Amino acid sequence: MTTTPDRIDELVAAASAAAPIWRDSDAATRATWLRALAGALDGAADELVAIADRETRLGEARLRGEVARTTGQLRLFADVVTEGSFREITIDEADAAATPPRPELRRLLVGVGPVAVFSASNFPFAFSVCGGDTASALAAGNPVIVKAHSGHPELSRRTAEIAVAALDGAGAPEGSFALVEGREAGNALVQHPLVRAAGFTGSVSGGRALFDLASGRPDPIPFYGELGSVNPVVVTPAAAEARGDELARGLVTSFTLGAGQFCTKPGVVFVPRGSGFVESVAAAAHGATGGPLLTDRITEAFPAGIAALEADASVRVAAEGVSGDGARPVVLVSDASAVAARPEVLLEECFGPVTLLVEYADEGDVHAALAAVPGSLTATLHSEPGDDVAATLALLQERAGRVLFAGWPTGVAVTWSQHHGGPWPATTSLHTSVGATAIRRFLRPLVFQDAPAALLPRELRDESLERTPHRRNGMLVLP
Amino acid sequence: MTTTPDRIDELVAAASAAAPIWRDSDAATRATWLRALAGALDGAADELVAIADRETRLGEARLRGEVARTTGQLRLFADVVTEGSFREITIDEADAAATPPRPELRRLLVGVGPVAVFSASNFPFAFSVCGGDTASALAAGNPVIVKAHSGHPELSRRTAEIAVAALDGAGAPEGSFALVEGREAGNALVQHPLVRAAGFTGSVSGGRALFDLASGRPDPIPFYGELGSVNPVVVTPAAAEARGDELARGLVTSFTLGAGQFCTKPGVVFVPRGSGFVESVAAAAHGATGGPLLTDRITEAFPAGIAALEADASVRVAAEGVSGDGARPVVLVSDASAVAARPEVLLEECFGPVTLLVEYADEGDVHAALAAVPGSLTATLHSEPGDDVAATLALLQERAGRVLFAGWPTGVAVTWSQHHGGPWPATTSLHTSVGATAIRRFLRPLVFQDAPAALLPRELRDESLERTPHRRNGMLVLP
Repeated sequence: MTTTPDRIDELVAAASAAAPIWRDSDAATRATWLRALAGALDGAADELVAIADRETRLGEARLRGEVARTTGQLRLFADVVTEGSFREITIDEADAAATPPRPELRRLLVGVGPVAVFSASNFPFAFSVCGGDTASALAAGNPVIVKAHSGHPELSRRTAEIAVAALDGAGAPEGSFALVEGREAGNALVQHPLVRAAGFTGSVSGGRALFDLASGRPDPIPFYGELGSVNPVVVTPAAAEARGDELARGLVTSFTLGAGQFCTKPGVVFVPRGSGFVESVAAAAHGATGGPLLTDRITEAFPAGIAALEADASVRVAAEGVSGDGARPVVLVSDASAVAARPEVLLEECFGPVTLLVEYADEGDVHAALAAVPGSLTATLHSEPGDDVAATLALLQERAGRVLFAGWPTGVAVTWSQHHGGPWPATTSLHTSVGATAIRRFLRPLVFQDAPAALLPRELRDESLERTPHRRNGMLVLP
Repeated sequence: MTTTPDRIDELVAAASAAAPIWRDSDAATRATWLRALAGALDGAADELVAIADRETRLGEARLRGEVARTTGQLRLFADVVTEGSFREITIDEADAAATPPRPELRRLLVGVGPVAVFSASNFPFAFSVCGGDTASALAAGNPVIVKAHSGHPELSRRTAEIAVAALDGAGAPEGSFALVEGREAGNALVQHPLVRAAGFTGSVSGGRALFDLASGRPDPIPFYGELGSVNPVVVTPAAAEARGDELARGLVTSFTLGAGQFCTKPGVVFVPRGSGFVESVAAAAHGATGGPLLTDRITEAFPAGIAALEADASVRVAAEGVSGDGARPVVLVSDASAVAARPEVLLEECFGPVTLLVEYADEGDVHAALAAVPGSLTATLHSEPGDDVAATLALLQERAGRVLFAGWPTGVAVTWSQHHGGPWPATTSLHTSVGATAIRRFLRPLVFQDAPAALLPRELRDESLERTPHRRNGMLVLP
């Protein structure tokens, strides 16, 4: 079912008409709208989880957790709106004595206008219709038009119905939220003259195509895409020695979580040769259970991806797990010199329960391979206190937006400081949809010079400043 | 003189080698480097102004002022670095009781890596070799490679020599700063694998071409371009009545400043028909002096631009000024319905001392024309306290990044709150090079999860937090 061009025009026109109302809404009202949306989704969790499980086969436990995460995310953004720093209010008082004399300037951030959001297949709630892109775009004061993912169409429609009703019930304007379906509809959205920005989570090829459309417009718009990530892990010899079995079990749990369909799955793990770590992982993986993959396309691509890796002369299978009525977990082993020589083969992201262990002999060996690792969302370093890891850490920091020193990259805490992004191809931009600063993607600066108080937006008037963190003449002021 | 591809490779490789040193430099060191650069330029002002005047003919008074503005800008960014908020340090403490348990996250912004800066013709200091793009990129912790503008090659070379010596003398690493020349060199810069971002001030066509190269890379990089702007002004009937002559004189001073070669020149002014305002402007313009234009290309384009406007049946010449050994100021008059019907003809930016007065009959008339005004850096509203300007202001806010309620848009105060940007074609991005937040363009987020204190960047360690504004568990904390 593809949304027709006429219908897209109607929906975008309604969003554009609603945009000034969202932009000018005060913090309390906007927070109420976000919380109403969260409440409605929580209230419909039983129904939504049942549909989601049928369409994605991710299982009830995981899906219930994901609903909670999604509504928690909406409420976090309600808090972000209420706290007020996101407006970045900055005041410079007039200075007649300066050369040249300085006018009074009052600056804030305001919503950019209608935002197109592209849902992901692998998080039918948290990165989908009412996921992080939608939450942050609404919080920034913008109507949202979501392109549904074809992997969960019924869930998308039902979630959108609930969202429209919740926003309407809370008093948000008509046109605040809409859903479109079909690839052509998505292409039309990023090219529509009234759409001002887009957020995307998906494949490198799909994201690149939409990024090119957005950038190729007569008036280019920002396109915030989260695409692909291999999420390198380095285990030092000391860490393998001190806690190899524990790390091996953690790795297996992480790379098989959600049947290996997380964008933060540890896809390539550098391990010391001869440390026994490969054998520990193999032992842990023997009992590991895979599961059904999300879509037919992913189901077909998984064995093809494994086969492409296995075709490399350096690669051998270290272990296979249990299929669990779907994809069987696989642990592959290669070596650092092969990865450094053929990164385009060995470091291709493979969606599903597989990880590639890369044996290294020494630091030079692992560094040469790390230099070939593409930009990733995360990088993980398992070391011991005595290790000299400065050079390794420098390489990992260059390649990822989040560096972990304990645990595993799957599981992305939704907090003020979180950052879900990294150099290309992890993302097309500095930010994506997780963490409080995701809101900044959908805001634009606006400065008022020598404005009479009556013509200032409410947030920039003196009486509002008393309640809002802001900067005055270069100094931060807290309420 | 075009920099060869081999030489570009050398310079970018040196910048890339210097990048980690800049990124990891502490605030005090980085501020010292910026102040050393400012001091060296101030010290060489006599020599530099003489070269600049020969190459640009902008006159000594203007050029001395521009040097002061440029070095003031470098010092402002030293202050921004010292103040520390630009790092956006955010800490979320671990929470073992959360579902799922939350790790400790520590976030900051770090430099993106080597930045390419494209100089403008019209500000040989403030938007050129050591201008706002360079100042903000260095402040963010990045080496810079400048593409010189062909309009002032000798000044560019001498400024770059001084910059390299000043940075070297202050202890900055080799590769911190470099200059390249020639259009092909500029194209090579935005496509170079080791260049991570670009800043540009110039024409719509030139900026678009470079934006397309940056976006079309295998790994797209952000391109922050300031392109073209007509800077609409609206004068209400009450304002024309109350202070028409004063406004007319102010307008003439503004549109002829720097021979009309400012990106913030008021290019289109909506005036009430029959108010006498056109006559007031004509009177003020008769004695106004133009001057030589910056380059042969601009000198040739100016009469062609005027001719294109005059060719429209709605346009007449209201006044001409005195050439001043160069371009003669011109005041043209059209009407709002013609502008609404043919914006592509009447709202084309024309660099040089010309402005278009657009007569309107009523609010509907001016609003229809305003809806056709392209995105601009500024919009100005001259009204009186009794005026109902809500609808007009809403239209202006949609079209510009800075809205003025007194004075004229030329002259851009370099302060914490300033914003120099607007919807396409004013800019390709939300930010450009003026104001403290220009620094954010050249930073990327980096999060450390559960890191041992010894492996954290210095700025994220507990002892540094005591001295730096930061956010902890969602709350802003001041030192």
